Amino acid sequence: MTRDSGFVLWFTGLSGAGKSTLARRVEQELAERGLRVEVLDGDEVRLNLCEGLGFSRADRDTNVARIGWVAGKLAHHGVAVLVAAISPYAEAREKVRASVDDFVEVFVDAPLATCAERDPKGLYARAMAGHIPNFTGVSDPYEPPAAPEVTVHTHIETVDASVQRVLDALTLRGLTSDPDEVYSSSEEEAVAARLGALGDLG
Amino acid sequence: MTRDSGFVLWFTGLSGAGKSTLARRVEQELAERGLRVEVLDGDEVRLNLCEGLGFSRADRDTNVARIGWVAGKLAHHGVAVLVAAISPYAEAREKVRASVDDFVEVFVDAPLATCAERDPKGLYARAMAGHIPNFTGVSDPYEPPAAPEVTVHTHIETVDASVQRVLDALTLRGLTSDPDEVYSSSEEEAVAARLGALGDLG
Repeated sequence: MTRDSGFVLWFTGLSGAGKSTLARRVEQELAERGLRVEVLDGDEVRLNLCEGLGFSRADRDTNVARIGWVAGKLAHHGVAVLVAAISPYAEAREKVRASVDDFVEVFVDAPLATCAERDPKGLYARAMAGHIPNFTGVSDPYEPPAAPEVTVHTHIETVDASVQRVLDALTLRGLTSDPDEVYSSSEEEAVAARLGALGDLG
Repeated sequence: MTRDSGFVLWFTGLSGAGKSTLARRVEQELAERGLRVEVLDGDEVRLNLCEGLGFSRADRDTNVARIGWVAGKLAHHGVAVLVAAISPYAEAREKVRASVDDFVEVFVDAPLATCAERDPKGLYARAMAGHIPNFTGVSDPYEPPAAPEVTVHTHIETVDASVQRVLDALTLRGLTSDPDEVYSSSEEEAVAARLGALGDLG
């Protein structure tokens, strides 16, 4: 059974903070609850929708706006859309928030030193050596959200704990349910369950 | 009730051939049948996903590829996606076809003279006066589909007739049903209907 109204769950933070890892884990959890889920990863979107855009503020803002436009379309049709994108500028994120019915912002917070130590793509080393201009956190700004719905501290909490806090935030807003409750969350399912209790009338 | 599998219904043809008119009418019909429907109009997509792209073959192909990517995402989540875009190059359309499970191509065919006479945006007059380079059908090529699922001839048939032929093509492929049959098309609806006949057990 699919929910009728989708939402946009937006993970913002530095490269290496854990956005994609978290998004993929939350994706699994939501899929198990019967939601339609789509992950829009910053890198994938750049390839498919933003080839030719660079890393100036204007180009980054365009990138975020395009992700937001696609996310909004999907959410409008009942999809739980998980976006993992650095999205360093608060104003661009706020524009997306204003354009979407249910927008939940997750600040994936980890100190720059931690991200640089993880350096999954080897980019921090190059950026710190001065080889990458416009690298967020090193040679380009990152504006933390002023009032995110959730902040996770990936340098001091486990992935499981972060996932749970994101799910709690969604549950609090009625955007997902505890897995044990999912069969009572829809009228049709309740009808089918009651009918089942009466035996097979088909 | 929403279908589980969406599809992409792609209207291609010259400017003024009737793509948007048809897409909007088919949208209404499908919405009345209970489908989730999204219309991606070429102009709207250019504004939101393709600002900066021009009308060279490469840029047109990129435009079509981006529309196709978004359409595929939506269709994957059960949406009936109606695309109205000139999409003049066969190869670009075929790439989208190859990337989508259910792709139904509608060739919206009308002679250039008819489109130029309609000229809803006043563009043909300017193009024919030599003021618009790369104007499809005048100063830029249009490659008709070799084997579209549907061809509608908007200069000799009514809009109603064209709409009906598009709907017939969808019905033939099991992508929509006759409106009178829609309530027997889903298990849950059938269960609810049977339960309704037993009286209110809630």
